[in-house]
Amino acid sequence: MATEYPAVVCYAPNPGPNWKVETVKVPRSPKEHELKVRMIATGICHSDVFVSCIPDGVMGAQYPKVLGHEGAGIVEEVGPGVTVAKVGDPVLLSYDYCSKCDLCNEHKEPYCLEWQKLNVLGEKGIFETSKAEDAGAKFFGQSSFAGMSIVSETSVVNVKGQIKDNEDLKLMAPLGCGLMTGSGAVVNTAKPQSHDIVLVTGLGAVGLGAVMAAKISGCKEIIAVDRVASRLEMAKELGATKVLNTSKPDTNFVEEVQKLVDGQRIGYVVETTGVVAVIQACAQAMGKHGKLIQIGIPAPGSELKLQLSEFFGLNKTFESHFLGDTTGQAHIPKMLQWHREGKFPIEKIVKYFPAKDALLALQGMEDGSAIKPIIIW
Amino acid sequence: MATEYPAVVCYAPNPGPNWKVETVKVPRSPKEHELKVRMIATGICHSDVFVSCIPDGVMGAQYPKVLGHEGAGIVEEVGPGVTVAKVGDPVLLSYDYCSKCDLCNEHKEPYCLEWQKLNVLGEKGIFETSKAEDAGAKFFGQSSFAGMSIVSETSVVNVKGQIKDNEDLKLMAPLGCGLMTGSGAVVNTAKPQSHDIVLVTGLGAVGLGAVMAAKISGCKEIIAVDRVASRLEMAKELGATKVLNTSKPDTNFVEEVQKLVDGQRIGYVVETTGVVAVIQACAQAMGKHGKLIQIGIPAPGSELKLQLSEFFGLNKTFESHFLGDTTGQAHIPKMLQWHREGKFPIEKIVKYFPAKDALLALQGMEDGSAIKPIIIW
Repeated sequence: MATEYPAVVCYAPNPGPNWKVETVKVPRSPKEHELKVRMIATGICHSDVFVSCIPDGVMGAQYPKVLGHEGAGIVEEVGPGVTVAKVGDPVLLSYDYCSKCDLCNEHKEPYCLEWQKLNVLGEKGIFETSKAEDAGAKFFGQSSFAGMSIVSETSVVNVKGQIKDNEDLKLMAPLGCGLMTGSGAVVNTAKPQSHDIVLVTGLGAVGLGAVMAAKISGCKEIIAVDRVASRLEMAKELGATKVLNTSKPDTNFVEEVQKLVDGQRIGYVVETTGVVAVIQACAQAMGKHGKLIQIGIPAPGSELKLQLSEFFGLNKTFESHFLGDTTGQAHIPKMLQWHREGKFPIEKIVKYFPAKDALLALQGMEDGSAIKPIIIW
Repeated sequence: MATEYPAVVCYAPNPGPNWKVETVKVPRSPKEHELKVRMIATGICHSDVFVSCIPDGVMGAQYPKVLGHEGAGIVEEVGPGVTVAKVGDPVLLSYDYCSKCDLCNEHKEPYCLEWQKLNVLGEKGIFETSKAEDAGAKFFGQSSFAGMSIVSETSVVNVKGQIKDNEDLKLMAPLGCGLMTGSGAVVNTAKPQSHDIVLVTGLGAVGLGAVMAAKISGCKEIIAVDRVASRLEMAKELGATKVLNTSKPDTNFVEEVQKLVDGQRIGYVVETTGVVAVIQACAQAMGKHGKLIQIGIPAPGSELKLQLSEFFGLNKTFESHFLGDTTGQAHIPKMLQWHREGKFPIEKIVKYFPAKDALLALQGMEDGSAIKPIIIW
């Protein structure tokens, strides 16, 4: 009889996330290019929440399923053909990609043509819930909201030799998505120079990852925007040179931002809110040849209105950004290195929750009290 | 008494371009980092027309002035400090940039922070019209709609040893703007692969430059769109694999384009019309991670509406593009090389007009009968 493991199982939304802490079994062994991983810790990311809210049947969504895509664990068993790690190796988990399509061939893996299938649609036959239901697995190739999971080899980053111990591994759990996305947007897409001003809107883990990376890049000014005072304080601690609190309803975003930079050119915006009004204001606030890097997921059906002649006249760009424009394999070692050098102090933004309190972790993220909640299995 | 040279002088719009063929004098010698160039030929570009239509006093526009920014000529005299060319050297002329600002330092010269001042606002004291008026000069650092002009050193590309004779120089005149912009958008910005489909909208010299460059890049499909049948024929001759004539009022652009590519992913759009409805349709027609490279200048005050969740969900980008993302110094030698190899047959799209017929050349461009008119001085 298979062992039972704690897990967060996601049921059809009501209409918000309908997560339940229960036990699951993992009845099968890893197949070709799969690994069984004993999870140590898993970060919660806003995408888990976003996906939890997609109604049953819409965009291929099926319930129940196991989410979780910032997993950290120890390899328990490897399937045939696996070369990335051996049993006992510590691993961090990131997204999955096919490695074969036109875009993967161009090293544009976050835009893999099989992305939806490999990361969102899920796979059956891996988890059995306490009511003997088959819960969808392989979310982001990993479904790491469980004490044990079967993951795709492509999602695995072997961190043996780069991690001190299990405590260290817990802390690094969230590197595979949010922090990679925010910091990668800066160092891989914006590539700002010391003369650049970077504006970051929305100070969750993605936004704060961008702030840290902008500091690492030596940007002249880093302007951080949010509606929560404590987040703005945290942004300052992590490198923001100026902050704007937009919680007052009459804030004139464009004017206030331009006042903060004294009319100087804003070269890059890392936008993590997905709020159309914020995106439009950012598009306007940027200076000549500014690039707006859109990370926040806009609401379904939303429309963006750009003042085209101004936008074009100042040679601006609006770019949809995904996953730091990189892979876990390429970017996680960089973040680990920054952390060792004291430049990427993620310990300041994480908050640990035991598995039984996973719903408190979710609540903490939603009410803003936990920037990056991490479930400990 | 200074010699007189033929020129096209641009007077305040009425409301269209108000060009007059007359003679001008060039009373002074080149100053530091300036050259006096005896023009052989000058291409006409839509930007000449666009700028000719800006009302007197708007955006700093002053009349009369001498336009022209695709000049080819022979150096007549050099000012102090000039190193780019010697008296007698054949030169092609492109845009001017400061070489010192933050964006020039990043080799983003088309977005030079001094661009407007150096290329559009013009300079006094170089041309004297037949009515003894001071006509603005240094448009694009060159104001080459004149048999003789004083140009900025940064606008000069020395083509000594790369040009056979004056006939060759005439043909190459238009390389400094339109053809550089269209081909540079493809090879410097899109950088398409052999698996890519490129869509080009608007088949003037810019669009056809993009078609030729897409063929050079070995793209799987090149879809060319225009309202003029002869342009579509020319596009096929230059490398387009499929064409769409949008002259019928009930054309469903998105459906028709997707039918042409059999539902395959369109990776890049080079948009040269500036028409908002076309831009919006292109944004929709692109596939996953598609990049819309906007070159056509949109009408003042126009607004772009993007279906944001679809645009973001498919990870698309809208990029304002200028001058091939390159400099004349870097890109003109490449185009000359392509031409020598028979891959850039610009002789198919040019039409020569003697200086006295400059207004016919303008008319030819506007009515579509001349794709790239070149004035011979």
